Parts: sequence; C-alpha cells; structure tokens
Amino acid sequence: MDLAAAVLQGDRLALARLLTAIENEDPVGLDTLSELYPNGGQADRIGITGPPGCGKSSLVARLAAHIRRHGLRPGTGSVKVAVIAVDPSSPFTGGAILGDRIRMRDLAGDPGVFIRSMASRGALGGLARATFGAVQALDAAGYPVILIETVGAGQAEVEIARTAHTTLVVEAPGMGDDVQAIKAGILEIADVLVVNKADLPGAENAMRQLRSALALGYPAHHDRHHAAVGQAGEPPAAAPGWVPEVLATSAFKDTGVPELIDAIARHLAHLDASGSRQTVDQRRALREVEMLLQQRLVEWFHSKLAEQELQAAVRLVVERKLSPRQAVERLSAGLVA
Amino acid sequence: MDLAAAVLQGDRLALARLLTAIENEDPVGLDTLSELYPNGGQADRIGITGPPGCGKSSLVARLAAHIRRHGLRPGTGSVKVAVIAVDPSSPFTGGAILGDRIRMRDLAGDPGVFIRSMASRGALGGLARATFGAVQALDAAGYPVILIETVGAGQAEVEIARTAHTTLVVEAPGMGDDVQAIKAGILEIADVLVVNKADLPGAENAMRQLRSALALGYPAHHDRHHAAVGQAGEPPAAAPGWVPEVLATSAFKDTGVPELIDAIARHLAHLDASGSRQTVDQRRALREVEMLLQQRLVEWFHSKLAEQELQAAVRLVVERKLSPRQAVERLSAGLVA
Repeated sequence: MDLAAAVLQGDRLALARLLTAIENEDPVGLDTLSELYPNGGQADRIGITGPPGCGKSSLVARLAAHIRRHGLRPGTGSVKVAVIAVDPSSPFTGGAILGDRIRMRDLAGDPGVFIRSMASRGALGGLARATFGAVQALDAAGYPVILIETVGAGQAEVEIARTAHTTLVVEAPGMGDDVQAIKAGILEIADVLVVNKADLPGAENAMRQLRSALALGYPAHHDRHHAAVGQAGEPPAAAPGWVPEVLATSAFKDTGVPELIDAIARHLAHLDASGSRQTVDQRRALREVEMLLQQRLVEWFHSKLAEQELQAAVRLVVERKLSPRQAVERLSAGLVA
Repeated sequence: MDLAAAVLQGDRLALARLLTAIENEDPVGLDTLSELYPNGGQADRIGITGPPGCGKSSLVARLAAHIRRHGLRPGTGSVKVAVIAVDPSSPFTGGAILGDRIRMRDLAGDPGVFIRSMASRGALGGLARATFGAVQALDAAGYPVILIETVGAGQAEVEIARTAHTTLVVEAPGMGDDVQAIKAGILEIADVLVVNKADLPGAENAMRQLRSALALGYPAHHDRHHAAVGQAGEPPAAAPGWVPEVLATSAFKDTGVPELIDAIARHLAHLDASGSRQTVDQRRALREVEMLLQQRLVEWFHSKLAEQELQAAVRLVVERKLSPRQAVERLSAGLVA
C-alpha cells in the first residue's frame, strides 16, 4: 500500500513517516502531500503563541486532553486531536523540551492524539514550510482539531500562528513589568488572550493591562495590524466584528481550560457565521503559495549559477569592492530582467 | 551636498533620513547605501538577544553609556556608539517600547550616541534587510561600535544577531523553571552569556544551568549549531577555540557592565588573533547577498506574472483543486526551468 493510502486509513506510523519526509523536503513526501491535499480542508486550526516561560506547552497539553474528551465545538463529544509544537530549538536542547512535555507524554499513549515537534532546520522559511506541510498532512489524515504551538515574539513564528483559524496569545504574570504581548506587538494577532499561571500573583493586573491595551486599540485594530505586518493584497487579519476575549487559566491547577475551549468555539462559530473562515483559508493558501514560490525561484537561480560565481561575488562584498546590492545586480543580470 | 557626503561628514539628520529611506526601501536610499559601502568595514558589531522581559533594553542602554565613556576595546577611551533596537512591534505598541527606553532617552542628548528602533514591516525578511542596511549606514558613518538588540527566540531575529562579530545572549532569573536560552535553542549562537537582573533571587542557579548546558554541549557545539540552523556552504558559527563566558549583570543596579565589556573585548581580540573576524564578515556578506537575491527574484517574478493569475491559483488551492506545490509549478512553468 502506498504512503498516501496508509495515511488516509489512519496508519499512525505512515503519518509519522510522511511528516519526517516533509521535514526533510524529500520529493516523495512532497508528492504524497499533493496527492493527499484534496482530502483536507475540514480541520479547525488553532494557533497558540506566547513568550518563553508562559507555560504554553502545559496549557496546550491541557487543551488537547479536554478536546480529546469533550470535543472543541459544542456537542461534538470525543474527537481526535493533533498537536504540532514548533520549536526553534536544535537537537542540542531536545532534553529540556522533552522534560517540559511530561504531560504530553501522558497523552501520547492515546491513539486519538498525535503529537509532533518541528525543529528549526535549514534556512529561514524551512520551518514555516515544514509546519504548513505537517498541518496539511494531519488535516488530510482526518484530525478535526490541530493545535499549533509556536514561541511568540519572533516574526517567523508569529506568521505561522497567523495562518490558524483561531489564534491564542498566551501570557503569564510576573514576567517583567509589562505584559509581553503588548511589548512584542503580537496583541494584534490574538483572537483570544490567555493569562496563564493565573494562580500566581499579578494575574488580575495582567488581565487589566491586556483589556486596556485592547480598548485603546479598537476600532483601528485591524487597520493597524494590516499596516504593520500585512502584505499588499492580503485579506484583513481577523474576522470583522470579533472582539478578542481575555481569559485566565492555570495549566498547573487545570482551571479555566473548559472556558477557554468555549471561547475558541465561539470564535470558530463567528468565523463560520460571518463568512470569514474563507478569508482565513485564502490567506493561508496565499502565504503557502508565496513561500513555495520563493523557494522555487531561489532553487532555480542556484541551478543556473555556478557556486564559484556566488563565492567570488561575496568575496568582492567582503573586500568592499561591491555593495551587497551591486553584487546581486551583477549575479542576476543575465537571468532576470 | 548629497546625502552620502552629508552622512560621511557626520550630519546626524542626514543619517536619520538615510535610515528612513532604507526602511522604506526607497531607491535613492538604497543607491546611497551602495555609494557609502566602501567607507564601512571598521565597526565592531555586537548583537544582543534574549527573551522578552530579561531586561535587554536597559542593559543595552548601560552598555552604550559605558562604551561611550570608556570605549569597547581596551585603552580606546571615549568613542561614538550606535544602537539599533530591532523590534517586531507595530506602531500600536510604540508607547510601551518608548516607556522602556527611558534610560536610552538620557543618552539621546549626547551627539556621540545614535539610537534607532527598527519596526517590523512588510513581508518576512523586510526587517532583516532594513537592519542590515542600517548597520552598513552606521558603519560607513563612522560609528566604531554598533549594538544590535533583537528579541530572541525568533528564527528571524536570531539570524540578525548571528551576523554580529560578538553575540550576547541575555537571560534573567525567575522566568519559569528553566533557563530560556536552553529551551529556545539559542545557546549555540552565544559568544557571551549574560544573566541580567542578577540582583533577583535565582541568578546563581541560572548561571549554573547555563554553565552545565555549555559543558554538555562541548566540543560538539559548533557542529550541532551548523546542523540545526546553518546553511549549506556556510562557515561555522563562531570562532574555533572560543569558550563562551557566563557573566552576571544588573542593569538596574548598574553592576557587572564593565566586566561584560571586558568579555566582549576579549572575544573581539580572539576573532582578530584567530583570523575568524574574516569568517564572520564573510558569513554576513553571504547572508545579505542571499536575502537581496531572494527579494530580487520574487520582485522579478511578480513583474512577469499578472496579479489575476496568482489570485486564480490561490482560489484553486482554497477549493482543494490544486495543492500549493502544484499551484507553484503551474505559475512558474513558463518562467523558470
């Protein structure tokens, strides 16, 4: 049986193999992904982002466990759930990551839960491409809920979170004087704001800060977002008419998680009712096409250019005989015009 | 007088105008940058990265003040210093950022100190391009020390920090159970590790954790880094033979800063003595050429492609009639082969 058929039949090992092939950009894996693509499109993609130390991983484990038991949308009951943890970590730090995921390992015995860590590899953009591919694969494999966890505050990571249907921005009290989402400028991407570690002092204050930042931001919120990180021709960031909710959770004490799931479900229902789900899906598709196009162009260029030519140009840049821009003009002159 | 000449004569207003032109990718600004390029190459570039809430901005202000007074290299005395704060923030969050930079504003009255915040704009890559350009401009304008502050844990931001001669990774105690640099996988890029907020409890513990992580990492440190975030053909990450130092500072109490400056100076001297400074400069040049090349290719492609063609392909992707990869093959078929 071929890989695509095995994935469609729920073979977890085949799915894991496919995800590895996607990470390695193995051509067979990428072809399988294209083959599976018509089977996807049903999953709810939930992005979870926030600064290091806010307890995202534990919260994601709690969310996954609750959704596995009771579903995400009201009344759905038990559903399969997939978790993708996007980690800028290298193999060097694998131990620390695993230690962190102790609750995830409890979930891992459940065949209805699929967990995958994506590590940064290769050039900038490789991680985002691999993550988009993994989401497609899990969607086609029939996981109705996909949780995508990224470390916030990075531009690449925030972009990954933005392609979700619903984006949670997670905070914790006591991480410096100010709420980090406000400082890092990621408030704009939040559909739901979560103050995790609500059992610690300062949680009330953090919620207050977030609420007043949101109040200041409206109604210009979406326009500003668009100007700041949007691209030309891109649809607006979030569903018009949705006001981000601010909630408190404690992954440690397992409080606030059902309320958070209700808020996510309300946002998903809002996307459906307002027709904005289509907008989100278009944005994701555009972003994926653009990223793959960029990769295709760079690969094509390198196939046309002798490696020595590039090295010679870089040497002239180091010697200050050419500026980087002049080097690029010289290298590309014969090929693009 | 033209812009390049004014910048070379130390005209701060002209320099500020040039940096704005670079951020806007204004062609005149980019030409001026090429014109100025032969004048650069002397500056020591120091990257400072770390998670939100570790007190980077205050530490950078302290570093700038000390270097301004006493120089960076031993015995140089007072030197001019430039600070670039790379911020993924949108205009929405400008206020919070400014509030944070209260000590920087004290510096700002000094004509020997130049401070600039770079905000995220446009597509992924725009921020890195603008930052590289700003560093070139400040280098050509005769600032012998350039401090580049980025929010760590993001892949794009870490890449910016990696093009510095010396990279500091800053931590603070009490930001969760584990040291964030270990979790976020940015330990590998550190030439000097700083535990800031050393007046708080837990600083000793954080230093111990960092030291043992480093001890575990050697001697495979550089190879692992290379496998994790390096690119094909890229020179190794840091100078062979350098063992990262771990230091404690308190920006709040202004302690440990002279010792930190000594450590940076030792690293710079090591780069000179080992011939590795050339390696760092080559890596930076290669990275800049690659980034500009990518931008050039994408712009060229869009100039050849009707906007409707792209939109039509994206629609087919949303409708699951084409996979993103198939859409890219179709769009690029006539142009690249």
